[in-house]
Amino acid sequence: MKKTQNEENDVTRWLTYRPEIKVLDCTIRDGGLMNSHNFDDDIVSAVYNTCVAAGVDYMELGYKGSKGIFSPDEYGKWKFCSEDDIKKIVGDNDSDLKLSVMADAERTDYHTDILPKEQSPLHLIRVACYIHQISTALDMVKDAHDKGYETAVNLMAVSIIPDRELDKAMELIAESDADIMYLVDSFGALYSEQVKHIISKYISYMEPRGKRVGMHAHNNLQLAFSNTIEAIVNGANMLDASIAGFGRGAGNCQMELLTGFLHNPKYKSRPIYECFQKSIEPMRKDLLWGFDLPYMITGFLNQHPRDAIKFNASEHRGNIVKFYDMLMEKE
Amino acid sequence: MKKTQNEENDVTRWLTYRPEIKVLDCTIRDGGLMNSHNFDDDIVSAVYNTCVAAGVDYMELGYKGSKGIFSPDEYGKWKFCSEDDIKKIVGDNDSDLKLSVMADAERTDYHTDILPKEQSPLHLIRVACYIHQISTALDMVKDAHDKGYETAVNLMAVSIIPDRELDKAMELIAESDADIMYLVDSFGALYSEQVKHIISKYISYMEPRGKRVGMHAHNNLQLAFSNTIEAIVNGANMLDASIAGFGRGAGNCQMELLTGFLHNPKYKSRPIYECFQKSIEPMRKDLLWGFDLPYMITGFLNQHPRDAIKFNASEHRGNIVKFYDMLMEKE
Repeated sequence: MKKTQNEENDVTRWLTYRPEIKVLDCTIRDGGLMNSHNFDDDIVSAVYNTCVAAGVDYMELGYKGSKGIFSPDEYGKWKFCSEDDIKKIVGDNDSDLKLSVMADAERTDYHTDILPKEQSPLHLIRVACYIHQISTALDMVKDAHDKGYETAVNLMAVSIIPDRELDKAMELIAESDADIMYLVDSFGALYSEQVKHIISKYISYMEPRGKRVGMHAHNNLQLAFSNTIEAIVNGANMLDASIAGFGRGAGNCQMELLTGFLHNPKYKSRPIYECFQKSIEPMRKDLLWGFDLPYMITGFLNQHPRDAIKFNASEHRGNIVKFYDMLMEKE
Repeated sequence: MKKTQNEENDVTRWLTYRPEIKVLDCTIRDGGLMNSHNFDDDIVSAVYNTCVAAGVDYMELGYKGSKGIFSPDEYGKWKFCSEDDIKKIVGDNDSDLKLSVMADAERTDYHTDILPKEQSPLHLIRVACYIHQISTALDMVKDAHDKGYETAVNLMAVSIIPDRELDKAMELIAESDADIMYLVDSFGALYSEQVKHIISKYISYMEPRGKRVGMHAHNNLQLAFSNTIEAIVNGANMLDASIAGFGRGAGNCQMELLTGFLHNPKYKSRPIYECFQKSIEPMRKDLLWGFDLPYMITGFLNQHPRDAIKFNASEHRGNIVKFYDMLMEKE
């Protein structure tokens, strides 16, 4: 196994950079969870142009959601990410930016909706699943791999998976065609030592098979950025971030922080600041993502943020004591 | 030297607690930097009552500023913290909560304004200084110690002090009467490995002399909480936090996060949430503290946040690109 940055001189670690590190922008995909994937094309174009200008490695556009499960009347087009809609934004994508979509286990008609790679501008299919959906997820990975894509497994809610089950899942994924294994802290509940433990586990299964390990953090405890750094230190090379942290609930690791931290000169901050202020930040007053005490409380309780999202959308928003009391009663 | 938590089982570390850890609330003191220490008594009383109810160990009320340097016409009474004003809030302070003030080197008439302990409700004098003021600071520490107080040195802007000078300062402080040595990340610029390096240095000088080590973080890079955890892991037992993170610029480590993380059952979250929503959060629309990209940019540049504070108070607030360009031109 390769020496991790952990073992290197700690001054070196923040003055130099690791060229293997790749950044994936999930602004439109994870942010889409706050507006049912209804974005004007100019927002999606702005993020695309920003990723190209800023040297970001991947951009995730949304989901390949099943139209049998999700009605196009209720959801915007980035819930489905048709190749035609993608091409309207990226044209021939004459850039180094790779494009990805997320495909949820049991909510994607993957045999039909994921086209052979030569018919699509997409490069990477990220399969999102819960632990009980691993078999389905690996069938989806095989399907996408056979169609010519890079593939990833985004195993969600890892903070509630017992180690014994996680180890078994790792054995299965290690033997699969997946190229990347992501730590997904869905509840924003992990502390750094837990990130270290899980990333190290993932690395130990994945690196010997030539697979990469990635990190997708949520900011419920204001630890999305620091946990992403912890993941880097322990060997993760695929990093998710979003502009202004735009994402479900407390949001994600902020792209502004991550590219400021990474010392690879290919990453440029100025275009990201421009997109932040012109395109993303103005949506906050309606979509209300970002660190907030209800999300912190669900993070501490290691729970899905759905109760906090519901509460923050209600007339009681701001009444933290009421939310706390409600959750304590439920416990 | 005692075994640090770092060497213990990482599951133990977040399921148990370290009884030596003490929390200092700096809401009114550091927050006072955003409103020239002009608080209505009911705000200060609310924070005091909250600290008592929540089991917080220390509350810092403000500064012992020199009236020769700072005019009481320009600054509120918590810039001066007269014993009479303190008593109006705390009465006889019939509680376990200890009270502290900050005394800035070269800006405090300490011989006259710091009273003998038996004439004051205060317990702890924290002397704040820059590296070139160490001699003055240690004279202030001796004065306060001789008057009967617990004493601390808050050595500011440590992120720009060369190691050679920091080592010499540690030798001097180790030999002094100071009870506590604080890591103060004034610019919010430190990453976890730097916190680890500096806290470990402080511990190596202070622990053999029976002195404690503390942490005061700023949130410019959204690392105030995670760096406070890192300080704990490396042996810091005195932790600063403020309700809603209220403090200069990007603010401090949030009390809600810190007491949620510490597993000592003596700390209660509910009174803190109550104070957060009733007393502190309503001031944000006018006082504008908290994480924001201009503070992030000064953090990345390892600079005092004054340019960011000035910018955020100007008509250009929100124009991050303009701020970034201004700072790049200055560099």
